[in-house]
Amino acid sequence: MISAGIIGGAGYTAGELIRILLRHPEVNINFVYSTSQPGKPVAAVHQDLLGETDLQFSGEIDKDIDVVFLCLGHGNSVKFLSEHQFSEETKIVDLSTDYRMADGKHSFVYGLPEFKKEEIKKADFIANPGCFATAISLAILPLAKAKLTKDEWHVNAVTGATGAGTSLSPTTHFTWRDNNFSAYKAFEHQHLNEIGQSLNLLQPGFSTQINFIPNRGNFSRGIHATAYTKFSGSLEEAKDLYMEAYKDAAFTFLVEEELHLKQVVNTNKCLLKLQKFGDKLLITSIIDNLLKGASGQAVQNMNLMFGIEETAGLKLKANYF
Amino acid sequence: MISAGIIGGAGYTAGELIRILLRHPEVNINFVYSTSQPGKPVAAVHQDLLGETDLQFSGEIDKDIDVVFLCLGHGNSVKFLSEHQFSEETKIVDLSTDYRMADGKHSFVYGLPEFKKEEIKKADFIANPGCFATAISLAILPLAKAKLTKDEWHVNAVTGATGAGTSLSPTTHFTWRDNNFSAYKAFEHQHLNEIGQSLNLLQPGFSTQINFIPNRGNFSRGIHATAYTKFSGSLEEAKDLYMEAYKDAAFTFLVEEELHLKQVVNTNKCLLKLQKFGDKLLITSIIDNLLKGASGQAVQNMNLMFGIEETAGLKLKANYF
Amino acid sequence: MISAGIIGGAGYTAGELIRILLRHPEVNINFVYSTSQPGKPVAAVHQDLLGETDLQFSGEIDKDIDVVFLCLGHGNSVKFLSEHQFSEETKIVDLSTDYRMADGKHSFVYGLPEFKKEEIKKADFIANPGCFATAISLAILPLAKAKLTKDEWHVNAVTGATGAGTSLSPTTHFTWRDNNFSAYKAFEHQHLNEIGQSLNLLQPGFSTQINFIPNRGNFSRGIHATAYTKFSGSLEEAKDLYMEAYKDAAFTFLVEEELHLKQVVNTNKCLLKLQKFGDKLLITSIIDNLLKGASGQAVQNMNLMFGIEETAGLKLKANYF
Amino acid sequence: MISAGIIGGAGYTAGELIRILLRHPEVNINFVYSTSQPGKPVAAVHQDLLGETDLQFSGEIDKDIDVVFLCLGHGNSVKFLSEHQFSEETKIVDLSTDYRMADGKHSFVYGLPEFKKEEIKKADFIANPGCFATAISLAILPLAKAKLTKDEWHVNAVTGATGAGTSLSPTTHFTWRDNNFSAYKAFEHQHLNEIGQSLNLLQPGFSTQINFIPNRGNFSRGIHATAYTKFSGSLEEAKDLYMEAYKDAAFTFLVEEELHLKQVVNTNKCLLKLQKFGDKLLITSIIDNLLKGASGQAVQNMNLMFGIEETAGLKLKANYF
Repeated sequence: MISAGIIGGAGYTAGELIRILLRHPEVNINFVYSTSQPGKPVAAVHQDLLGETDLQFSGEIDKDIDVVFLCLGHGNSVKFLSEHQFSEETKIVDLSTDYRMADGKHSFVYGLPEFKKEEIKKADFIANPGCFATAISLAILPLAKAKLTKDEWHVNAVTGATGAGTSLSPTTHFTWRDNNFSAYKAFEHQHLNEIGQSLNLLQPGFSTQINFIPNRGNFSRGIHATAYTKFSGSLEEAKDLYMEAYKDAAFTFLVEEELHLKQVVNTNKCLLKLQKFGDKLLITSIIDNLLKGASGQAVQNMNLMFGIEETAGLKLKANYF
Repeated sequence: MISAGIIGGAGYTAGELIRILLRHPEVNINFVYSTSQPGKPVAAVHQDLLGETDLQFSGEIDKDIDVVFLCLGHGNSVKFLSEHQFSEETKIVDLSTDYRMADGKHSFVYGLPEFKKEEIKKADFIANPGCFATAISLAILPLAKAKLTKDEWHVNAVTGATGAGTSLSPTTHFTWRDNNFSAYKAFEHQHLNEIGQSLNLLQPGFSTQINFIPNRGNFSRGIHATAYTKFSGSLEEAKDLYMEAYKDAAFTFLVEEELHLKQVVNTNKCLLKLQKFGDKLLITSIIDNLLKGASGQAVQNMNLMFGIEETAGLKLKANYF
Repeated sequence: MISAGIIGGAGYTAGELIRILLRHPEVNINFVYSTSQPGKPVAAVHQDLLGETDLQFSGEIDKDIDVVFLCLGHGNSVKFLSEHQFSEETKIVDLSTDYRMADGKHSFVYGLPEFKKEEIKKADFIANPGCFATAISLAILPLAKAKLTKDEWHVNAVTGATGAGTSLSPTTHFTWRDNNFSAYKAFEHQHLNEIGQSLNLLQPGFSTQINFIPNRGNFSRGIHATAYTKFSGSLEEAKDLYMEAYKDAAFTFLVEEELHLKQVVNTNKCLLKLQKFGDKLLITSIIDNLLKGASGQAVQNMNLMFGIEETAGLKLKANYF
Repeated sequence: MISAGIIGGAGYTAGELIRILLRHPEVNINFVYSTSQPGKPVAAVHQDLLGETDLQFSGEIDKDIDVVFLCLGHGNSVKFLSEHQFSEETKIVDLSTDYRMADGKHSFVYGLPEFKKEEIKKADFIANPGCFATAISLAILPLAKAKLTKDEWHVNAVTGATGAGTSLSPTTHFTWRDNNFSAYKAFEHQHLNEIGQSLNLLQPGFSTQINFIPNRGNFSRGIHATAYTKFSGSLEEAKDLYMEAYKDAAFTFLVEEELHLKQVVNTNKCLLKLQKFGDKLLITSIIDNLLKGASGQAVQNMNLMFGIEETAGLKLKANYF
């Protein structure tokens, strides 16, 4: 059994990690570290676990743990790792933005299994991708892999309220968000950096624009993204590229059906649909922002690092309704 | 024109008051008093007013105003009136709980027009009823008025998230409230006092229990209440009592149709439906908690106090969808 | 008083028309024509009107009516007018798509007051614009009016479930739509024709693409649209163009605040926000699809045709929550 | 491996069964029978399964199956079993109402494991309880088991839209249901029979009223129920009774925390909270109507009948958000 620790246990991504790992056939949760509430039952915070577990938040860290997940606010993972040291065997999966951009100094591998599986298998440290970055990268990278991105991308995506985190803010108040919709951070969302980095690795020299408008939706979970660009090939040629790119993917599927977000909610899947209109290739991409966009992908990365079945613990029953 | 002032302008009830009064044919808003943000445009807070008004929050109070509405947190109206004095002609409508219970000292009239119309017309000071109290009182008082309440009442009601106010709290976070439902303050809600006071005025000596379970619904506006008790008469006798009780009501109607909450959302109406099952009389009652349950009723009371048309400014187009 | 008739009274747009006209200070509803349910109370279908009106559906049409609104399914207005004749004085407002495209034969004026006010004032027949067409046209036409549309437009918009009409369909089932999101008719929505026609009138010779992805949102009312294109001028220059274009508009406002859909729900307003990022000008546009996108604009057109105050009957209290 | 068949595969309960059984460690799905769409992929209907399974609907029934689940409309199970015969070894779980009431003729056991575990283990035929009946029975039966039900019960419960089935109806249209709430079938819901039958088995001679008001909520999944009655004992005595009644329950837990519906959504759990106010004992009970209220409990019953781990295949990750 893999012995796992979780740092920062109160947020949405930590909650999903705990839910997954409690049912994972090859993992034991050794500790869920919390400086603010040691001794408190985990089920008092993640209340869907009432009746299921006696696990408590811990004020102590076991440095000889097999794997540790960092569920900390952006900027805090670097700080945490500068103050705490784990054993040489401990693998780390960081869910923050801190190590996603390669800088030649740190040795974190960007954990997008569809494009980095072999690197992840050998990695000790994983920077888990952002939620928008995952949905959009899976939509556009096959074209870059084929060196066929020639023009600007036009991307529009909407995320659920869990994307904004557990903290209370005016735009997560129920009366504001209920039956509402709004764009935010247009053209300037921080995940553009991750996407651009991946694109450049696959198609060096790519320098055109990714125009990205993120939106806040009035639902709790999930990301729905559409992305289009000029593409001179046929729809069939495009499908072949995507089929080839994802032929070994455990959770990413090209489908012919019309997509709607709830097809993937509460699963670790990404579903993609391709369409061609005039000179534009349109890709629709849907994920659960907390699973494939965060904690599910983190466990997928852990599975790969430990050489166990990539889907272990992740065959989740969809909610669908 | 009636010159009106509003004290405490940032909350939901103040917002609804401002929306109503801006379109009221016989009212001018003289000031919306705010100590925290004088000079700020009202439309910056109540953003549906963008493009419609240049009104700004004011740090000053005009003491010679015709009518002042107190939209303050519970407990703060008493405090405010002890610190500020208005002219002898100024009428006051308080939307807090502070003056709802008669204590032999203050001279506020409980502003439920269906049962107090003549008193309200002559009043200078109105204690505007609570939202649950309005929905439930209109459901049960006709029986008390006929001295026919003989046994316990069993009341269950659900309110929207605006009922909890604008402040951020865990149970108003979108991800908590979305697709959720919960009971709270069962048997102990503070509005039971108001309802009991009204019941006792109409049917002195009534001393049996009102069992009341309030619930939090995952919608923004409205209260849906069901109330039943033992009733030995026929359904037709009950309907006659209610028709008689509300024959002069401007906004309260007995209907035969099935009720659902959105029939009254964004209106000042209360719809009531009566049914009889075995020995039980069941009354379903629906209102918009911010209108008939707060600001709409406050304006209705103002209209009565000033001798103008009771429905002036309150013929609101329903939202319905 | 203007005497008005409504043809086809059971749908969403008819419901909103009835709600508005019942409260309109200068209109009497003469009849709401329904072949399927003559004699049935209007409030039995539009149940928010319970207690407010005794109006019944009528099986008869008064041909001498001042104005008639056609609230028929697309394709049925042409058929209806070929089978029914009104007096020469009767003005007609058609809410379907049937007369929106000029064909040199019919004499309907496209009823977008921001760009056709003088024509509308003189018109007898109005083709009321589509909901998406309204939101998007108001976002992009000022640039065309200035002959400055040089490159493709990229438009993404989301509409509420009322946009799909009252008929039951899998994508309007609550369990499907709740907390869901989906794109549909990408690049092929029928409103593109209307938008293109308006663009070409203002900037003849414009021939580049409007890329438009419509989406189904999990809310009931409203359209939120973002549109961007290359623009070589500054943000201030763009704002000046839009301010000039809308300086006489009764309901369309350029604002500096962040936009979110509920700022306009249950109003006849369109709010626009302009931003510049690199070489792109981004316009966000929000309307209520049933009001500015349908029945509200129909009444606005009627007001203009009859020479009364453009905002009469349309100073609606927002729902906001 | 247990070989399972499903009759009637297109509805919500069939969908949940398929989702659970596809991931159940000891079950193979042999067929999902559909007369209307044989050969169609199951994932074309239950679209969250896209990418996960090649299972198709079948027009054939294997009569030698180990277990068959009947997911048919109420009234159709009797009809189906009169027209089709299975092997003597085939166990049957019927999810309709058809066999829930004992009539001395059929040999179906009422499948509420908390009160019938030993009977279920020996049963060949199971009548799976109704969703409201499950939530309410688990709330009130421990008192009956202790022969302590002395007075009327007052029950109010709200169910999600999946409770109304997949068929399209006015009250499941998104624009009707969104942000709406309504009571229905007050005092007359069909599940009262089941509850009364269970009560009488445990406390023979019980003849007082269960007053039950069901409600339609604007959410997709789950039932939230409150039930109270007069109880002369202390809260601690009540808790002891309930703890004793559920000490061996696999999924039913008494908790001290405040309850809200999403604690159990997408799980097979029932959470119960007890409170005492004056002479009233209040029990709050929450379940997922499609799982503990239908398909999850059906699999729980299957597990018991086959002598495997009661929780097999049912350790589901909650959705929670």
